[in-house]
Amino acid sequence: MALPRVGWIGLGIMGKPMATNLLRAGFDVVAYNRSVNRLKAWSDEGGRTASSPREAAAGADVVVTMVSDTVDVESVLFGDAGAAESVRPGSITIDMSTISPSATRDLARGLRERGIEHLDAPVSGGESGAIAATLSIMVGGEPGAFARCRGLFDALGKRVTFMGPSGSGQATKLVNQVAVLGNLAATCEALRLARATGLDLARAVDAVGGGAGASWQLANLGPKMVVGDFAPGFPVRLARKDLRLILESARELCLALPMVALVEQLFSALAAAGGDEDGTQALIRVLERPLPRP
Amino acid sequence: MALPRVGWIGLGIMGKPMATNLLRAGFDVVAYNRSVNRLKAWSDEGGRTASSPREAAAGADVVVTMVSDTVDVESVLFGDAGAAESVRPGSITIDMSTISPSATRDLARGLRERGIEHLDAPVSGGESGAIAATLSIMVGGEPGAFARCRGLFDALGKRVTFMGPSGSGQATKLVNQVAVLGNLAATCEALRLARATGLDLARAVDAVGGGAGASWQLANLGPKMVVGDFAPGFPVRLARKDLRLILESARELCLALPMVALVEQLFSALAAAGGDEDGTQALIRVLERPLPRP
Repeated sequence: MALPRVGWIGLGIMGKPMATNLLRAGFDVVAYNRSVNRLKAWSDEGGRTASSPREAAAGADVVVTMVSDTVDVESVLFGDAGAAESVRPGSITIDMSTISPSATRDLARGLRERGIEHLDAPVSGGESGAIAATLSIMVGGEPGAFARCRGLFDALGKRVTFMGPSGSGQATKLVNQVAVLGNLAATCEALRLARATGLDLARAVDAVGGGAGASWQLANLGPKMVVGDFAPGFPVRLARKDLRLILESARELCLALPMVALVEQLFSALAAAGGDEDGTQALIRVLERPLPRP
Repeated sequence: MALPRVGWIGLGIMGKPMATNLLRAGFDVVAYNRSVNRLKAWSDEGGRTASSPREAAAGADVVVTMVSDTVDVESVLFGDAGAAESVRPGSITIDMSTISPSATRDLARGLRERGIEHLDAPVSGGESGAIAATLSIMVGGEPGAFARCRGLFDALGKRVTFMGPSGSGQATKLVNQVAVLGNLAATCEALRLARATGLDLARAVDAVGGGAGASWQLANLGPKMVVGDFAPGFPVRLARKDLRLILESARELCLALPMVALVEQLFSALAAAGGDEDGTQALIRVLERPLPRP
């Protein structure tokens, strides 16, 4: 069976390396991106381009969206020159962005009415995981559609988990982000304490990483905090969006998530101090100034 | 060179398997424990026993303390029938408990006046790491004393890190506990959200563990939360003691650690609800009841 023809929408920090991995795996990929400079970079590397989501989706067996937020997915699918104007019945849309689980169920209903199966398949693993094709992919939707897209997912990630009906992938991603951003805040407070105590920070990262305090966040972002590298793998702006989605879900579900609420406020403080485009590891800067001595 | 003769004080959840690993590695170990039933279990497995810290330390080249808190270490070293009454000049004391870094520096001074080198060498990795001899060990003190004890540490752990002068091991352990208990709280809130959303919890643990939300806490305690196993590997009582030590250090250093403060209060709520002897994974129970629907 020939590999499916893929329409790809969104060539950001994550989308670009993911689409490139599909190209390398032999998929026929036509990509669209809102900002022209990122589209040009894709074209310079030999990727085929489209000038709208509609054009990217025309003739595609699978349309992948990898954009920022709920409204962006709605817009590239159902907006002017959106993918829904050209995508054929019998084909599949896959949203790999992180957006609202309940909005995802609405999108899936709208697409099913047009004969299109929709999968929500958000990812975790950061820019490094996107480049190395080692992402964790959490999928919700119809099992049959999932089975048809398995080869595509395997070209992008290492752990692909089918979670259940439409919205389950996004719900799992929000669960994932509670762990990601909670562990990140814990890493920041740990290294802030280490610095204040006068410890060798690199050695502290190594010692803590060998025991029960080990985490992906410490191993991957701890060394960046040590050297003050705040370049974005995962920008604060998107972390704040995820925290908003988590707290919206908590409200819908009547749940108390006190640590998430605190972390959301710490990121608000960072954004207010001008850090919205920094990487999430810049959260350590919120805690950087010592208190006045009594 | 013959292996040093070891006096071991404290046969708790961690101390017992650690002392057993020394026995297996060929060390001559004489152990003391305050409660007689744990001492008997040690004796039943062929370990030699002492009836006081002083007796355990008599003739030892190295005296190891593995007890609960600062006052316990002070008591088994300097109290009535304490190790300091019999330990010989030229020998080494190693405290592997988790206690105050500043109290550790005082202890080390007191011992040095008697010609005894003191190392602080707290561990991370939990009961499973103690049994498997895969602990992370964070050591503070004189480099020469550390070198003499390297073989003993290697029989107990996998990652042994020399952190610097006296107190540095304990300071690193507190840094470690910020990561441990922060990651644990994040794991609890993540799985609480997963349950409320109706996800398959075991699959959620698997999916999150494959990406940027991965942590030792999720991998080791997540499955226990899923099945409701709250048996203590690391009891809430000791987690609360560590959080108290961290907040005491933060106050000494004029640091703000808002997440640690929140986690300390969540554990206080758990203890107030009768969970002080449960394992730390029981923290998920604090969040278990949904809010009343508005």
